[in-house]
Amino acid sequence: MRKTRLDTDRIRAARRVINPVFLDSPLYRCEALEPDLGCAVSIKLETANPVRSFKGRGTEVVASQLADAGQRAVVCASAGNLGQALAWSGRARGLDVTVVASRFATAAKLDRIRALGARLELVDGDHELARERAAVIARRDGIRLLEDSLDIETCEGAATIGLELVDDDDAAPAFDAVLIALGGGALATGVGHVVKALAPEVEVICVQPLGAPALTHSWRQRRVVTTDSTHTIADGVAGRCPIPAVLDDLLLVADDAVLVEEASIVAGMRMLLDHAGLVVEPSAALGIAAILEDGERFAGRHVVTIVCGSNVDVGSYHRWVGAVGC
Amino acid sequence: MRKTRLDTDRIRAARRVINPVFLDSPLYRCEALEPDLGCAVSIKLETANPVRSFKGRGTEVVASQLADAGQRAVVCASAGNLGQALAWSGRARGLDVTVVASRFATAAKLDRIRALGARLELVDGDHELARERAAVIARRDGIRLLEDSLDIETCEGAATIGLELVDDDDAAPAFDAVLIALGGGALATGVGHVVKALAPEVEVICVQPLGAPALTHSWRQRRVVTTDSTHTIADGVAGRCPIPAVLDDLLLVADDAVLVEEASIVAGMRMLLDHAGLVVEPSAALGIAAILEDGERFAGRHVVTIVCGSNVDVGSYHRWVGAVGC
Repeated sequence: MRKTRLDTDRIRAARRVINPVFLDSPLYRCEALEPDLGCAVSIKLETANPVRSFKGRGTEVVASQLADAGQRAVVCASAGNLGQALAWSGRARGLDVTVVASRFATAAKLDRIRALGARLELVDGDHELARERAAVIARRDGIRLLEDSLDIETCEGAATIGLELVDDDDAAPAFDAVLIALGGGALATGVGHVVKALAPEVEVICVQPLGAPALTHSWRQRRVVTTDSTHTIADGVAGRCPIPAVLDDLLLVADDAVLVEEASIVAGMRMLLDHAGLVVEPSAALGIAAILEDGERFAGRHVVTIVCGSNVDVGSYHRWVGAVGC
Repeated sequence: MRKTRLDTDRIRAARRVINPVFLDSPLYRCEALEPDLGCAVSIKLETANPVRSFKGRGTEVVASQLADAGQRAVVCASAGNLGQALAWSGRARGLDVTVVASRFATAAKLDRIRALGARLELVDGDHELARERAAVIARRDGIRLLEDSLDIETCEGAATIGLELVDDDDAAPAFDAVLIALGGGALATGVGHVVKALAPEVEVICVQPLGAPALTHSWRQRRVVTTDSTHTIADGVAGRCPIPAVLDDLLLVADDAVLVEEASIVAGMRMLLDHAGLVVEPSAALGIAAILEDGERFAGRHVVTIVCGSNVDVGSYHRWVGAVGC
């Protein structure tokens, strides 16, 4: 394939600087989901770690590089998961971490960012405004700006998930499609790069909410398409302004990008709770939502879905999925 | 220490026959739990696998031995998790699996046992009656009876968790106590053996419900004490008739055995849901319950709790923990 910004050897090297608590996450068949979905489903579970999302993989790479270079501070914009992960990785290395987030971000994520010792600055707008503000802070203070999905370390960190899915010399992957939540694009381009490099026969399918479709529209039109607003409960993937370099990579590695309804996301969350015993955030249910919306496409196939985060406000979660067990 | 029935080299060998999907389960600090508990808490998560409990470790050992020996059938009594795991391990090796359970057992567990292709026989009584019935079937059919906690493979399988906690040549364990759900005793004697063999300074604390205290009473009185009935939602640990050989081992490896109230188990389940995003079955919340009941004992210490299973009936779970987020 044509070359993405990623490099498989660099991704293998990234694994060596990531705290093992984020690596080798569970990968297992979840047969209890299968009667309702009509296909074999494996879960790659990225929530059983200290920050309850996959973002620690990338922040470990960044923070270790900053520490090695003797830098003392870093700032990022975040919907909450990247900030939490950067706070964790930065704290472990004595870095001064600032996170800029929307004041409408998930409260549980903001609480954890503060609890992990980062400086949290809230903006009165959405994630794109937080990105602008983080850039201002970086210039003002002369510190590293970490830009999710643009900065290659965030893609390389996410890509280590791909190695855990397909980097097995002894065996072909047992599955034939991987469903990846599409937000800024780090997860999709990272995992997609590795899958296409090492197991090109596996279909790479990105999934985004209909209410936050900018990168999917961009992928389909092969040019950056922005939107004026987002309308989705999937806060972790609610961007409006795709990054050109990320789109270029996505065009090389994604076999498809699909959009799903909010109701399907909620149904996916509920299925993961009832049949897999997993509390997940909306972004982490996008893969199940995609299967629910196009059962025929997946019938009889074996699909992996990356359950990418579980940071939810318990009140919101209750409103979405209803009372557990009712 | 005096010798238990377990052997650390055999436990290391057991790891090699266990499907990796059950091994190297997540172990991570859960700081969000800590403000309410007053101590550092790490979770050893045994629910992110195909049977949602630790029991697959032991059934993999048994099933591989049976298959190697050319045997075709096995029967066990189970509250549900052992049966589900034996059904999984047996199916993978073409074994004919029969599970005997109480008709009052958790419906979700019984459903999964059936779905995994095992023959399920229900008895009109509690787990002790199921044990008797399984023994009758084994004699009648001339097949292997798998007895949880008595049969050394079940203890060795559970003990591999202990290796993952303390078997690190490079470092002393970061924690100073491990909290283990106490039921039949396989988990406690298995993990306890390894901890006492490799990191004897780590305190091994068994936790049982006040409503199912037989093995704790036995440990305290150093002789088998049975009870007439059990009264607990923690179905996975609700035995009445401790096994003498298991008690002998437990006397060698447990530093303490404590009993907790039902309300504390429910509070622990709720905390794991709200602060760790984990749906757990009651037995898996026993460790958190023990911390809640004796905060002073654990204040400032670093405790590992083994989250041993997540198989719940969603309706019951709802009644116990209340509506999520309310």
